Amino acid sequence: MADLGFFLKNVLVVSLAMNLGLIWKISHDGEKTLTSKWKWGDMLHFHGCCFNDQKNNRVEEEELLVSKRTEEILETTSSPAAAPEDWESVVINLDHGDPTMYENFWKQKGDQETTVVTSSWQHISYFSDVKNVCWFLEPGLVSAIARLHKVVGNAVTEGRHIVVGTGSSQLYQAALYALSPPNGSGPMNVVSAAPFYSSYPLMTDYLKSGLHKWAGDAYEFNKQEPYIELVTSPNNPDGFTRQDVVKGDKGILIHDLAYYWPQYTPILVPADYDIMLFTASKSTGHAGSRIGWAIVKDREIAKKMTTFIEINTIGVSKDSQIRAAKILQAVSDSCGQENQKGAETFFDYSYKLMAERWKKIREAVNKTELFSLPSFPPETCSFSGRTFGQLPAFAWLKCEGEVDDCESFLRRHKILTRGGKHFGAEHEICEDQHVESRERV
Amino acid sequence: MADLGFFLKNVLVVSLAMNLGLIWKISHDGEKTLTSKWKWGDMLHFHGCCFNDQKNNRVEEEELLVSKRTEEILETTSSPAAAPEDWESVVINLDHGDPTMYENFWKQKGDQETTVVTSSWQHISYFSDVKNVCWFLEPGLVSAIARLHKVVGNAVTEGRHIVVGTGSSQLYQAALYALSPPNGSGPMNVVSAAPFYSSYPLMTDYLKSGLHKWAGDAYEFNKQEPYIELVTSPNNPDGFTRQDVVKGDKGILIHDLAYYWPQYTPILVPADYDIMLFTASKSTGHAGSRIGWAIVKDREIAKKMTTFIEINTIGVSKDSQIRAAKILQAVSDSCGQENQKGAETFFDYSYKLMAERWKKIREAVNKTELFSLPSFPPETCSFSGRTFGQLPAFAWLKCEGEVDDCESFLRRHKILTRGGKHFGAEHEICEDQHVESRERV
Repeated sequence: MADLGFFLKNVLVVSLAMNLGLIWKISHDGEKTLTSKWKWGDMLHFHGCCFNDQKNNRVEEEELLVSKRTEEILETTSSPAAAPEDWESVVINLDHGDPTMYENFWKQKGDQETTVVTSSWQHISYFSDVKNVCWFLEPGLVSAIARLHKVVGNAVTEGRHIVVGTGSSQLYQAALYALSPPNGSGPMNVVSAAPFYSSYPLMTDYLKSGLHKWAGDAYEFNKQEPYIELVTSPNNPDGFTRQDVVKGDKGILIHDLAYYWPQYTPILVPADYDIMLFTASKSTGHAGSRIGWAIVKDREIAKKMTTFIEINTIGVSKDSQIRAAKILQAVSDSCGQENQKGAETFFDYSYKLMAERWKKIREAVNKTELFSLPSFPPETCSFSGRTFGQLPAFAWLKCEGEVDDCESFLRRHKILTRGGKHFGAEHEICEDQHVESRERV
Repeated sequence: MADLGFFLKNVLVVSLAMNLGLIWKISHDGEKTLTSKWKWGDMLHFHGCCFNDQKNNRVEEEELLVSKRTEEILETTSSPAAAPEDWESVVINLDHGDPTMYENFWKQKGDQETTVVTSSWQHISYFSDVKNVCWFLEPGLVSAIARLHKVVGNAVTEGRHIVVGTGSSQLYQAALYALSPPNGSGPMNVVSAAPFYSSYPLMTDYLKSGLHKWAGDAYEFNKQEPYIELVTSPNNPDGFTRQDVVKGDKGILIHDLAYYWPQYTPILVPADYDIMLFTASKSTGHAGSRIGWAIVKDREIAKKMTTFIEINTIGVSKDSQIRAAKILQAVSDSCGQENQKGAETFFDYSYKLMAERWKKIREAVNKTELFSLPSFPPETCSFSGRTFGQLPAFAWLKCEGEVDDCESFLRRHKILTRGGKHFGAEHEICEDQHVESRERV
């Protein structure tokens, strides 16, 4: 028991912000919290690497609040600006994020280039291109996706099939449907190396499907059965680059590459996996449009994924597809010869923003020995030429000191976070995997 | 066996067009068909009550083709205009529909009133209104939905919760999730009176859920177990007004009211059921936007439906919600004092269009004794004051003559339709229910 206590103390972890999958907690469990959060007339959400917002002075207010609340454990370097009088009553919710952090970039863009005008008679049909495997995929979005991946060099699209989804969550479920045999002897095992994105278990099991079931940490999977391994790279929640880990020959891989963009990680090679998932929410910050896309090698898999989306939602909003196409084209334009004015590119802007935030949180955390953050070895980005370590959209904070339960500790100071157990980390600890776990973290 | 043959001959039925649920058949099974269908450079789809399209001369071409193909069984009153030279190679696909029939109305509308302009920085967030049970529902859409139902008088919204979905298909699945106990002794039975919308069985069972299972024709359900009964009114495919039919006390009802609008049926009373589903696809013809809404009495059910959509797609496209809000407001405007120019209202336009099509198809069918169509008793619409019988968006055609298999018969003439078996009608026949079935049809 003493040993277990030691492990718990050392590897309990907290993911700060940008955890999108447990959003329902907010509206259902946390209404009281929201009430107090909303009293400022604006949402005090932290995003990016757990601090900032649309308004810079609010960022600083939040940083001050974190500092005060944790009795200078998490001190920041910023000064408060127009601090509200009743700090003590404010709850800071870092349990989820909202990628509005790029809003200022988009505000600076010329309207002509990125504004979408839609008349009431346009895009009425269910169909976009019935010759395409994905018949509800707008041709303009196909071009925009292929061009942007080519410009950035982060994924191969030539000769691949693209399937559009209502966000990448729907595409994850579509991939499970496509990869699970309809008449298998039992549900297909679905695994991912811990710590894994906290929504994957729920998305896999919420309908108690007979096609697939969540089978936990990929490091611990050793059944001689077919399985699907989900590889999230860079990983949510810890930010590290990932490869598949199961040593089996019956596996099929899904690569969730939502964060494989040059503001979050050095781009090394164009990814070229069987099924790759991307989303506008993370690449350009347009979460409200609910547009994701899968790049799929096998035509039959792409067809089955399309079938899932047909049954699930009979296609994907055309209004959002057309808007996303325009946004992605604008990002490509800003990176190429079309950018004749030499304006700041989207990826320059977003990289600098992420780098600045990580600098701040590292400075704050370094002032105490109670917490630590992952360190990422620098590599050179083939897109930007910059050499840097990962800049994840969330911070995977580890308690190093006397605090046994970091989530509860911060909650007492009215800072809401999501503890490691939601990401499969607790299980590892119970299994005495903490050394391996720490190495991975 | 002789009796069974007699039944089959008499009650095999075909639904023409507007069958949205089996769209995947087109892209997957029917690619060869599509190739030939698309050779005219435009899709030859029939919609509304199985004839017409955006271009009037194409409507007439299609009508001629039906006539020629079925050897004047289905004769039309129209003359061909600019008939293509190789009629014989064209496949007419009536197996599905696409509600572009209102496109001309929307083209006539002033741009200012209904055009949506979206800048790249708008609607970026996941959130719309975190104080609402459905936190991703745009407040503008709530107002537009409530106002339109008030104007038309087809549903009560006061004191109800509205949940937005990516089309009403997603809301159907959300309702099943919300109504099925997570820890029940077995999957919840889901039934609907035959003939039922052909996609319901698939939407219920495609993930082999342990929460719910399709249990077939509601008329035949007699288990002493909990069940969900789906009441579609007016019904897809036959167009009739419906009530629940199971005589049990363990049932929960979902009302699919997609067609309860005054262009399809006389509005009699504001519907006031526990869970009511509507969709923009059928009400205004904006299928490409994928916007549906549920009106829900019970707050806990609305919360669980919201949870389903959170897990499934983390909300619903804001771009489409905002567009749908503008469209619905424009429809309300056209019906009220805002319509100062006395322009034709949306419901006048769409009613006249449907009435004209039904007049044509009835004239064609009346020229032969091989087929019959349902007849609908006239009633007075509380919205328009008109007295009329149902004008469904599809035709439920019955073979009365020597043709044993109407679907195969028409397919030999290169007219693709969907036979009664897809709607649960075949099962009734095998069970010797044909008299009851005919009465219902």
